[in-house]
Amino acid sequence: MSSFGKIYRVTTYGESHCKGVGCIVDGVPPGMALTEADIQPQLSRRRPGQSKLTTPRDEKDRVTIMSGTEFGVTLGTPIGLTVPNLDQRPHDYSETDVFPRPSHADYTYLEKYGVKASSGGGRASARETIGRVAAGAIAEKYLKDALGVDIVAFTSSVGKAAMPFIRDLQENDTVKPEFYDFLNTIDRPTVDADITRCPHAETAEQIKEVILKKAEEKDSVGGTVTCVIRNCPVGLGEPCFDKLEALLAHAMLSIPATKGFEFGSGFCGTTMAGSQHNDPFVKKNDGSFGTKTNFSGGVQGGITNGENIYFRVAFKPAATISRDQETTSYDGVVGTLATRGRHDPSVVPRAVPIVESMAALVIME
Amino acid sequence: MSSFGKIYRVTTYGESHCKGVGCIVDGVPPGMALTEADIQPQLSRRRPGQSKLTTPRDEKDRVTIMSGTEFGVTLGTPIGLTVPNLDQRPHDYSETDVFPRPSHADYTYLEKYGVKASSGGGRASARETIGRVAAGAIAEKYLKDALGVDIVAFTSSVGKAAMPFIRDLQENDTVKPEFYDFLNTIDRPTVDADITRCPHAETAEQIKEVILKKAEEKDSVGGTVTCVIRNCPVGLGEPCFDKLEALLAHAMLSIPATKGFEFGSGFCGTTMAGSQHNDPFVKKNDGSFGTKTNFSGGVQGGITNGENIYFRVAFKPAATISRDQETTSYDGVVGTLATRGRHDPSVVPRAVPIVESMAALVIME
Amino acid sequence: MSSFGKIYRVTTYGESHCKGVGCIVDGVPPGMALTEADIQPQLSRRRPGQSKLTTPRDEKDRVTIMSGTEFGVTLGTPIGLTVPNLDQRPHDYSETDVFPRPSHADYTYLEKYGVKASSGGGRASARETIGRVAAGAIAEKYLKDALGVDIVAFTSSVGKAAMPFIRDLQENDTVKPEFYDFLNTIDRPTVDADITRCPHAETAEQIKEVILKKAEEKDSVGGTVTCVIRNCPVGLGEPCFDKLEALLAHAMLSIPATKGFEFGSGFCGTTMAGSQHNDPFVKKNDGSFGTKTNFSGGVQGGITNGENIYFRVAFKPAATISRDQETTSYDGVVGTLATRGRHDPSVVPRAVPIVESMAALVIME
Amino acid sequence: MSSFGKIYRVTTYGESHCKGVGCIVDGVPPGMALTEADIQPQLSRRRPGQSKLTTPRDEKDRVTIMSGTEFGVTLGTPIGLTVPNLDQRPHDYSETDVFPRPSHADYTYLEKYGVKASSGGGRASARETIGRVAAGAIAEKYLKDALGVDIVAFTSSVGKAAMPFIRDLQENDTVKPEFYDFLNTIDRPTVDADITRCPHAETAEQIKEVILKKAEEKDSVGGTVTCVIRNCPVGLGEPCFDKLEALLAHAMLSIPATKGFEFGSGFCGTTMAGSQHNDPFVKKNDGSFGTKTNFSGGVQGGITNGENIYFRVAFKPAATISRDQETTSYDGVVGTLATRGRHDPSVVPRAVPIVESMAALVIME
Repeated sequence: MSSFGKIYRVTTYGESHCKGVGCIVDGVPPGMALTEADIQPQLSRRRPGQSKLTTPRDEKDRVTIMSGTEFGVTLGTPIGLTVPNLDQRPHDYSETDVFPRPSHADYTYLEKYGVKASSGGGRASARETIGRVAAGAIAEKYLKDALGVDIVAFTSSVGKAAMPFIRDLQENDTVKPEFYDFLNTIDRPTVDADITRCPHAETAEQIKEVILKKAEEKDSVGGTVTCVIRNCPVGLGEPCFDKLEALLAHAMLSIPATKGFEFGSGFCGTTMAGSQHNDPFVKKNDGSFGTKTNFSGGVQGGITNGENIYFRVAFKPAATISRDQETTSYDGVVGTLATRGRHDPSVVPRAVPIVESMAALVIME
Repeated sequence: MSSFGKIYRVTTYGESHCKGVGCIVDGVPPGMALTEADIQPQLSRRRPGQSKLTTPRDEKDRVTIMSGTEFGVTLGTPIGLTVPNLDQRPHDYSETDVFPRPSHADYTYLEKYGVKASSGGGRASARETIGRVAAGAIAEKYLKDALGVDIVAFTSSVGKAAMPFIRDLQENDTVKPEFYDFLNTIDRPTVDADITRCPHAETAEQIKEVILKKAEEKDSVGGTVTCVIRNCPVGLGEPCFDKLEALLAHAMLSIPATKGFEFGSGFCGTTMAGSQHNDPFVKKNDGSFGTKTNFSGGVQGGITNGENIYFRVAFKPAATISRDQETTSYDGVVGTLATRGRHDPSVVPRAVPIVESMAALVIME
Repeated sequence: MSSFGKIYRVTTYGESHCKGVGCIVDGVPPGMALTEADIQPQLSRRRPGQSKLTTPRDEKDRVTIMSGTEFGVTLGTPIGLTVPNLDQRPHDYSETDVFPRPSHADYTYLEKYGVKASSGGGRASARETIGRVAAGAIAEKYLKDALGVDIVAFTSSVGKAAMPFIRDLQENDTVKPEFYDFLNTIDRPTVDADITRCPHAETAEQIKEVILKKAEEKDSVGGTVTCVIRNCPVGLGEPCFDKLEALLAHAMLSIPATKGFEFGSGFCGTTMAGSQHNDPFVKKNDGSFGTKTNFSGGVQGGITNGENIYFRVAFKPAATISRDQETTSYDGVVGTLATRGRHDPSVVPRAVPIVESMAALVIME
Repeated sequence: MSSFGKIYRVTTYGESHCKGVGCIVDGVPPGMALTEADIQPQLSRRRPGQSKLTTPRDEKDRVTIMSGTEFGVTLGTPIGLTVPNLDQRPHDYSETDVFPRPSHADYTYLEKYGVKASSGGGRASARETIGRVAAGAIAEKYLKDALGVDIVAFTSSVGKAAMPFIRDLQENDTVKPEFYDFLNTIDRPTVDADITRCPHAETAEQIKEVILKKAEEKDSVGGTVTCVIRNCPVGLGEPCFDKLEALLAHAMLSIPATKGFEFGSGFCGTTMAGSQHNDPFVKKNDGSFGTKTNFSGGVQGGITNGENIYFRVAFKPAATISRDQETTSYDGVVGTLATRGRHDPSVVPRAVPIVESMAALVIME
């Protein structure tokens, strides 16, 4: 189904080339100030065409609140949001009628539904994420205003260009104390200061090189987005099937083009000793009870412990590339698929607000 | 909540030291042969005390079918399953009344609920997984009998001892063709032939060394479990929030002690080029339509494409160790927690049937 | 939450005076012909201002399909529907700022949410039902096209003017065989032939009198809608909590202004003897297996048996009347609330398509 | 599925003749005193064989708490409850192999599942309600202890013998003020003082006559149970699909043998004028804000308003009777089904605790 969440629930609609995309956000607390201006910034951060690193396709993505507010204040009733599709050209990619595009959803959609949208990726299109980002922006506003929760994501690697904390974990089975400081202070302006959305200058330079090289090669490259949630209340998450990390994993792997999720020490934690990995409890300088290290990633037994929640999401290289690809047609004939035109050499920088939005939806859930 | 699944749904109950653990499995198809003998083997594979590598605590874990079958055939009604706790000693770990155990759920449960089970880990105990494994065994039987689906998991790494395909991906951005053959053929007898449940002899030897060394050091070590699902019908999974990989990630991260999930190329896919990562379509020798490579891991656009589904789950080193740990008491006093007695140096081999069970629950969902 | 259904699910948004109302319909089968023309008729039947019996407020209610179809065929993806509110005047009923309107939702909404829409009934407004009716129209089309299911509702009583079958049950503990024939043949053109939507001429005349008298008295009157579902597949409904009658009851009592639900023999069945109430099985003339009588209303043990499903829904007299009402203000001061202007003397005829729509949603669920 | 509720959820298992019946109750608040002694009384009130009016079959129904408490206090974890079936004789009713019993679930279960339990009614058996009643008893305890909520149900009619308030509504379109007093004060000891569970002496006598006459005739008779919920917090229920009355209707129609549900004025409200039916607001003697009359039944716009919630549930005459019934076999042959032995001439008195339990589950939801 096209819904996410239990008590704060978003339901989305819209394909790449229909009249519009949108969503209904149910469970929004009443009495909160809310206008389109609270939602638009994250939509604009998600939008293609923001920099020379991303696809030249410029989608305007202007959101309208249809219901659920009056005089700029939420009523506690469902909020309908719509974003018109300005570009409704049917049938943009004609060769894809013959060939299912490799590693796209063309083949699986056709098998599952018996029909598919004639152009673009249908619901697999990245435009589907507009609804989530809009719903996430509302959730973030509530979390920030009511609870002081901060959610910040950033590009942590593209290709082999990775921020130092990733290498520390991979090579030394630990993180430097500076990493915890960084998680405590990183904010969106810092992230957006570079078009890569990587807040480590040296890595950002490498990432730019990687992406531009792939663009030149008419190819694509993947990467990872890391996200931190600060000031999250203690006690979120359920002991068993709905552990907070399970909900986060579900949310993140529902984003198109994702391949993996890890939180806290993640896959690198598997090579550490228990005595090293366990986070000892400490009384902190401010009198609060907490942990000295945070390999647990802010969650123990599926339940938040008040430390920073942080996790990393893997994005594959985008399946749309501008190179010829040898493949096989629906009829079983080997041939060459030449996808024309535009493509996005790396989706990673644009994925940053999507990761933030899905994180906000999980915390609200 | 303590339920997983929508149309095939398991609901579990039970802590470590109450009268018993169990579950209700709802949505079991009618008319299927089913007795306790179909369920017990996976429970026995999950059970502690199976080999010198695991905890010496021997739990018998005999399952009883309370309802839902007659004359050994399912009725389509919910199946109640119970497993008595033979060891109901209250209050086994007295020092843990003073100190919340590092990286256990003691602290978060107490914060969330205001009470906690006086002994053991309550619902965070591994005994909670008994219900899931039982429900998974029923699901697996149905999937095998009705659809020919095979689910096989195995230990792919413990500490830094890892099977070759993992290194191939990490170092060479690809897998060898032998890996695909291996996924096509690996079965449970082969997996169980070694007590590590690692089906690669050389790696298995290394793993044994790693685990025994950690046991000697009264410490613990993590690892990864890889799982393959074969013959899965095309078309499972939903386009948007309930992509098959999202459901798998949710399921896997709900297993205690997990830190990460990746499918297909996973995190290593982030460093590949799109042109290399895309799986071209081919007409196979048997006439079927499929893909040449399988970096997609059997899922495209969230929907199964008929190729093998494979994924890898990260397990941290168990938080229970037999060494003294410097930490802080609930009262904020620094001190030393000496967990007495038994512990499991690596949970990875025992996690294998749990991963299989959760995979089966996802496919049935 | 604002969603109904599990595998076919509608989620609605919209208050009486925001930019628009609408819904997302998820789970619509792919490959079905669908345009606005399939949805509009039921919206028009629901619309106020259709005859001299209903409120003079004329709402146009033109629906637009935003997504989920291409070239007039459903894609299997969610269908977004919007209906603009032409009349967005804020603050229509100023005295209601002082007095909570008796038997409206003003007071309870304010208590629950702390805010309320300044005008009209917010989500309690009958405009909220537009989304349901639209979703129901799509469901009905599928049920008719794919399975031959017919759903027909009609006005069975208004005030004390009731169709003969109701009196037969109340007074004689039985129904005449003609009643079963009637259920087999009644159709929407027959229902719509009279503005009361009562398909029994004599009762229809009485109903018109009752309604016009109440209109004259600036008062309102309730009534009942009876609905029959024909050709419903055998086996729908779950044995326990989700019996088909439970889902129908849930659906019907979610319609504004409803007070009760009964199916088959209903409340009158409580005064019958078991030997009289039990429906004996028979082999019918067409060779099918069925029941001779149908006090069960087409459902046995919560599961459809292939006979006609029929049920009756009670609607209270509309709370909005044009007479002065003595009541008490939010401040606790006794006073007179004079609701100005228009009101609907009986909502029953307009409720007919809403009942049909909710019935269709249940059958699809 | 076999679950009810969202945040307080019961899942049941068990047929009439398997090893046992039981349930898992999830979402029970932590820190509440709870032992079997809190649950057993409602199970015993539900039990057959309590008086000469009910079936002679004596089922002991002793409940065991398997999990979720320690030292008699709830842990916030799921509570497993089991009740062994002492009478597991297979195949009690041999003629029913040939004839589907009229107005039982035999035929529909067989059509839906392809198999059916060889004896008794499987999940349609009244034994299935044991789990609900147990879960309801826990819910009631919490509601009473934490919020002061009182839930009291009683037999309001059997056959044509009905309490005076029912006739007042039917004949005079109103209720006497005494009825509101009665709803404010009725309690379970008063209800249980008579074996009919009808708290109006004159009606109770008539009911006894009716039931004994039907028992003599080897026949059965239905009736209605009325239930009042006092001190329910304001604001429960959702505006749209999950109105409190919709949840109550769903819950009540999920009880075996029910045919209808009405709340407040119910079906009789359809014949009243709006000016008469609207409940004016008043400031009460104790300073609270409320309504003068209560035709709304404690719910306005789907949301509780703090007044007493009351509703009435219709039960059909039990389908099991001890008379010969002419019907048709599965093979289509007309014949006579002679159900041997025991039957319950009226299920109404025993349904009282079931109605209370389902009401408690709805309030907790």
